[in-house]
Amino acid sequence: MARTGRRPGESGTRVAIIEAARAGFAEAGFDRATIRGIAEDAGVDPALVHHYFGTKEDLFVAAMDLPVNPGVLAEGVLAEGLEGAGARLVRTFLSVWDSPPGRDILVGLIRTAVTNERAAAMLREFVRRALLERVASAIGEPDGELRAAAIGSHMVGMAMLRYVIGLEPLASASIDEVTALLAPRIQSYLTS
Amino acid sequence: MARTGRRPGESGTRVAIIEAARAGFAEAGFDRATIRGIAEDAGVDPALVHHYFGTKEDLFVAAMDLPVNPGVLAEGVLAEGLEGAGARLVRTFLSVWDSPPGRDILVGLIRTAVTNERAAAMLREFVRRALLERVASAIGEPDGELRAAAIGSHMVGMAMLRYVIGLEPLASASIDEVTALLAPRIQSYLTS
Repeated sequence: MARTGRRPGESGTRVAIIEAARAGFAEAGFDRATIRGIAEDAGVDPALVHHYFGTKEDLFVAAMDLPVNPGVLAEGVLAEGLEGAGARLVRTFLSVWDSPPGRDILVGLIRTAVTNERAAAMLREFVRRALLERVASAIGEPDGELRAAAIGSHMVGMAMLRYVIGLEPLASASIDEVTALLAPRIQSYLTS
Repeated sequence: MARTGRRPGESGTRVAIIEAARAGFAEAGFDRATIRGIAEDAGVDPALVHHYFGTKEDLFVAAMDLPVNPGVLAEGVLAEGLEGAGARLVRTFLSVWDSPPGRDILVGLIRTAVTNERAAAMLREFVRRALLERVASAIGEPDGELRAAAIGSHMVGMAMLRYVIGLEPLASASIDEVTALLAPRIQSYLTS
């Protein structure tokens, strides 16, 4: 009988890796945690972690149960060039937050980050690697990282007021309205 | 003997008013709480609350122990006209947050707002009255309140990343650098 791709213990192994990843990222932060260390804690070979979950970024996304991989989305937006990227960034960001399952997970993440110093450290390291460095490199200016962080601050604050605090008229505005409002300012951080 | 201005029970009365105000704002929110109701709960005449604390906004600032009165600061900035108001708003905002006692109180307020729905409601009502309506009225456009809320989102997000999450290079940038970065974008919400 031919071997199937799915071995009997696969789902248990995946759970063990995810649990080891959650503990490992919380303990060491995103930068210092390693696939090798997480694999060791889960009692599996590092190659199996890569095989199931991909890169360390992908593993983080799976462990935090993120609705999307923010680094992959950002790369997609930036790959089309900087022209119009402000509007595409804002629209992509709002679309993820506007879907109820995405929103619940992300609101939970913001609550954790503002009340727990270790979670804040883990998230800021991930956000730097997954988002700021990619956006800064696309901007290609000496102050690219500062500009990228300013973009991030505008988006995070928008999410805070619109989805967490529920401030009107932001909370009820459509994605189109918010995109039209923010896009020119985000674009100016990218290209002016 | 002449009567002195300071009556024997004054500090006890002030404390009773502040405690009634904290409970009243938390219970009813900023909009529905009244000086009359708070005075009644404190067992004093409403005129005494006005005499000691001023307006309902002033009483809220005292009850929340805010380092400054944000409405008064915003009025000061806007009274000089919209030209250059972007830079003045950012610099004023950062100066309050950069002072350690101010920062501790404001970080505590953000933590409470994102984890407690009732506190969030109270704060969003106060922010609308004290800040958004003033800025919107200075902008004087049909979408003034949406623009004012967008400005608020950029400032709140900046505070989140710089002071709460500690994201670099924002956390270590000087007030001058952050002002130079944000001011043109805030200005464009005000006047373009």
